Amino acid sequence: MTGHVSEATIRRQVRFYECDPAGIVHFSWFFRYMEEAEYALWRRAGVRLGPTAEMAFPRVAATFDYRRPLRYEDEFEARIQVASIRSKTIKYSCELTLNGELAASGTMTVACVRKTPGAPMRAMPFPPEIIGRFSVPRS
Amino acid sequence: MTGHVSEATIRRQVRFYECDPAGIVHFSWFFRYMEEAEYALWRRAGVRLGPTAEMAFPRVAATFDYRRPLRYEDEFEARIQVASIRSKTIKYSCELTLNGELAASGTMTVACVRKTPGAPMRAMPFPPEIIGRFSVPRS
Amino acid sequence: MTGHVSEATIRRQVRFYECDPAGIVHFSWFFRYMEEAEYALWRRAGVRLGPTAEMAFPRVAATFDYRRPLRYEDEFEARIQVASIRSKTIKYSCELTLNGELAASGTMTVACVRKTPGAPMRAMPFPPEIIGRFSVPRS
Amino acid sequence: MTGHVSEATIRRQVRFYECDPAGIVHFSWFFRYMEEAEYALWRRAGVRLGPTAEMAFPRVAATFDYRRPLRYEDEFEARIQVASIRSKTIKYSCELTLNGELAASGTMTVACVRKTPGAPMRAMPFPPEIIGRFSVPRS
Repeated sequence: MTGHVSEATIRRQVRFYECDPAGIVHFSWFFRYMEEAEYALWRRAGVRLGPTAEMAFPRVAATFDYRRPLRYEDEFEARIQVASIRSKTIKYSCELTLNGELAASGTMTVACVRKTPGAPMRAMPFPPEIIGRFSVPRS
Repeated sequence: MTGHVSEATIRRQVRFYECDPAGIVHFSWFFRYMEEAEYALWRRAGVRLGPTAEMAFPRVAATFDYRRPLRYEDEFEARIQVASIRSKTIKYSCELTLNGELAASGTMTVACVRKTPGAPMRAMPFPPEIIGRFSVPRS
Repeated sequence: MTGHVSEATIRRQVRFYECDPAGIVHFSWFFRYMEEAEYALWRRAGVRLGPTAEMAFPRVAATFDYRRPLRYEDEFEARIQVASIRSKTIKYSCELTLNGELAASGTMTVACVRKTPGAPMRAMPFPPEIIGRFSVPRS
Repeated sequence: MTGHVSEATIRRQVRFYECDPAGIVHFSWFFRYMEEAEYALWRRAGVRLGPTAEMAFPRVAATFDYRRPLRYEDEFEARIQVASIRSKTIKYSCELTLNGELAASGTMTVACVRKTPGAPMRAMPFPPEIIGRFSVPRS
């Protein structure tokens, strides 16, 4: 038993204020949905994604391909998976599905940075107690 | 003189509510900044990006690579360019710069869809009076 | 058995992107939390709060008094109650609590308007099948 | 010459992502517009509204009464005025107008708090170099 975590799924309902005048979820919201799944993944792994006084986890890349719109009150699933792990970055893939049909698929890469007051944020390796909690799913 | 429009630049200040507890702009906001530049581009082209009763312009893909964080009160520029034009999609590239240094670079693809009440949105070619207003910049 | 609905409570966790650089939930988000409780209330009443082609339910007033900050990952409750019912408006009161302690208390008034294409929205009485589903709680 | 500042006005265009499926600005956005005007007011006063390591300026109350909806691309004005000044709070009133007609009127009260790591935020008097920059407008 390793305790490694590779994926997480959240179930979520579209809120009214997330939809735009076209009646569909504004595309920027999908990135927040992906982040919510990411937080669920880190919670499952027993580690905290939020910034501390010394460390933060900024995103260095994010993408989405949109297939079907989501609408107010739609109840969708967001499933995030660890796609690759490097010393300083973790990359995820994420699928949003509505009633089993793909609504959108995304990717996101998170880095670990050291915060020093008055200095720019600087990339650093993830601490082992964080990075060691995740693994890429076996195909 | 063709009147073709290939790019637009907006100048914009980071607002407090766009920043997260790490003290930097939340990554989801960059997509909204890119959209603001896109709206400026369409205005320059003399066409309106908003949905009508019959037509809408959903995004089918969006990406960002993040280089440097933006912070509260930073005044940055977002420059969007037409990257490619097809009958049913327009793809843009976008650069956000702060004091001349690259903060993030993104892409976005917008489609044209027909809205029929009670039916799913369906891809259609952009009307010529819209697509004819844009061109890819000469390299 | 009357089926009248007077209140609803939702349980909700603060998301990272709802917090600002001060590390607390931005005050504008409380209004969205109150709206989420309102949607739960209407669902309990068996009626739909979203706009239709002919009718919409804009807010005509909203207030919040803030007592304690909410922070990332806090799990709070939002309890909304019908405060008064008139033919054209419904007023709510709402309390947000964290671990049983009051975080904020708000009010909101929603109206019913007729949508006519090309004309301004116009106040109209709520249809009986909507207004008849709600009642003020007995004190 | 006192240098006291009593009001500020910003001009602002409604963005697409600020509008909801009813086609109008979501009511929660008005509070962000009011905050933008507040930041302009503090900038005029030569002081910075953002949180520091020791101090923050949370809102303790906020209200809006909505008269007319704002829509995508509307260019409106938000005018904020100092309504009252106490040692620990400043209260504002704010009017949003579109083409000279009142769209909404709001109020907001901001407090000054001391931040101590590990302890709750605690109300404190505004420093004189801040509070001394503002005054209530003469009627």
